[in-house]
Amino acid sequence: MYNPGHFTESDPDEIGRILEDHPLATLVASSTSGLVANHLPLVLRDALLFGHVALANPLHADIANGAAVLAIFQGGNAYISPNWYPTKTATHRVVPTWNYQVAHVHGRIRWLHEPAAKRRIVSLLTNRHERALNGPDAWKMADAPADYLAEMIDKIVAFEIAIERIEAKSKLNQNHPAENRIAVSNKLAALGATELAQAMGRSLPE
Amino acid sequence: MYNPGHFTESDPDEIGRILEDHPLATLVASSTSGLVANHLPLVLRDALLFGHVALANPLHADIANGAAVLAIFQGGNAYISPNWYPTKTATHRVVPTWNYQVAHVHGRIRWLHEPAAKRRIVSLLTNRHERALNGPDAWKMADAPADYLAEMIDKIVAFEIAIERIEAKSKLNQNHPAENRIAVSNKLAALGATELAQAMGRSLPE
Repeated sequence: MYNPGHFTESDPDEIGRILEDHPLATLVASSTSGLVANHLPLVLRDALLFGHVALANPLHADIANGAAVLAIFQGGNAYISPNWYPTKTATHRVVPTWNYQVAHVHGRIRWLHEPAAKRRIVSLLTNRHERALNGPDAWKMADAPADYLAEMIDKIVAFEIAIERIEAKSKLNQNHPAENRIAVSNKLAALGATELAQAMGRSLPE
Repeated sequence: MYNPGHFTESDPDEIGRILEDHPLATLVASSTSGLVANHLPLVLRDALLFGHVALANPLHADIANGAAVLAIFQGGNAYISPNWYPTKTATHRVVPTWNYQVAHVHGRIRWLHEPAAKRRIVSLLTNRHERALNGPDAWKMADAPADYLAEMIDKIVAFEIAIERIEAKSKLNQNHPAENRIAVSNKLAALGATELAQAMGRSLPE
């Protein structure tokens, strides 16, 4: 991705936040039939990304173990009007742009067909999302009948992605004076784009 | 993308809505340096997608005219807890899933370097977003000094994508009985995931 220095996100906490808050990744690969993308919730654990696809998804046959994949996690984004910049009235030297945060995880995929590995990854994803959402009322895999769960596990293929590099971008008006950045952050907050507004706040110089 | 029949979105209105409401596309290509993705607002006009990249973005040099690209437009998405299904209490034969809408536009890219073409495309994007946001107070390109605008236009390369096929997916619990779909839609609405809740409402049988 085009990622000039002033937009490059290198803070591990900020990158972690993008992955954590936007778990539905776009998993891109280049197969014999062309570019292919699937939308899958992924979870980061021990420097690996874990997920699963349906057994009926041809991806696990089309893409071999070790194939290069790109997992894209897209954070908040919004159109930014030049009207929002206080400096506009002085110079009018402003144009529209789009602010966003995104993390690109490049790595190598390895498919996991063993029931125990699949069950471990499903459990990892389930616990992560159920606890966040339902706390003590979290749904547990043990809540489903064993035969049904075994059937469901048979219908998926799990995978892990060994991370080679992460490229992240926080495009948050860093090429503007602080007064514009503060004004845009306030405007976004007023419009309900809370996540992006807060990211802009964190990106301001101390 | 894996797209079983019950999730395949074939309604042009629904596909148009995804592109319209989520204009920041992920533009994916396969270059000599591997998989590359850029995040760019795109606009559909006369069966073509239009956008632009920074002149400093190597994409316009790395990807030739006619290269296959994939523009991904991601709509609303949310984790769906098995706790939300009314049928859970009867059978417990339910597992977590993720609901989402997405449109994949496959096509061929053509770069546009002429200032008039670039200006036309910037104007198309600006008008589309400014009018929606600011109505009669919309910022216009003529609001900026001519020399500044010419400088900005020099710093971009525009492109059009000739669409070859669109694959869209509305993964909205269509494999569940209506009572579960209604309950999930209501739960999402209560949690503030309005867009996805409404899409689920539209997807219900008449």
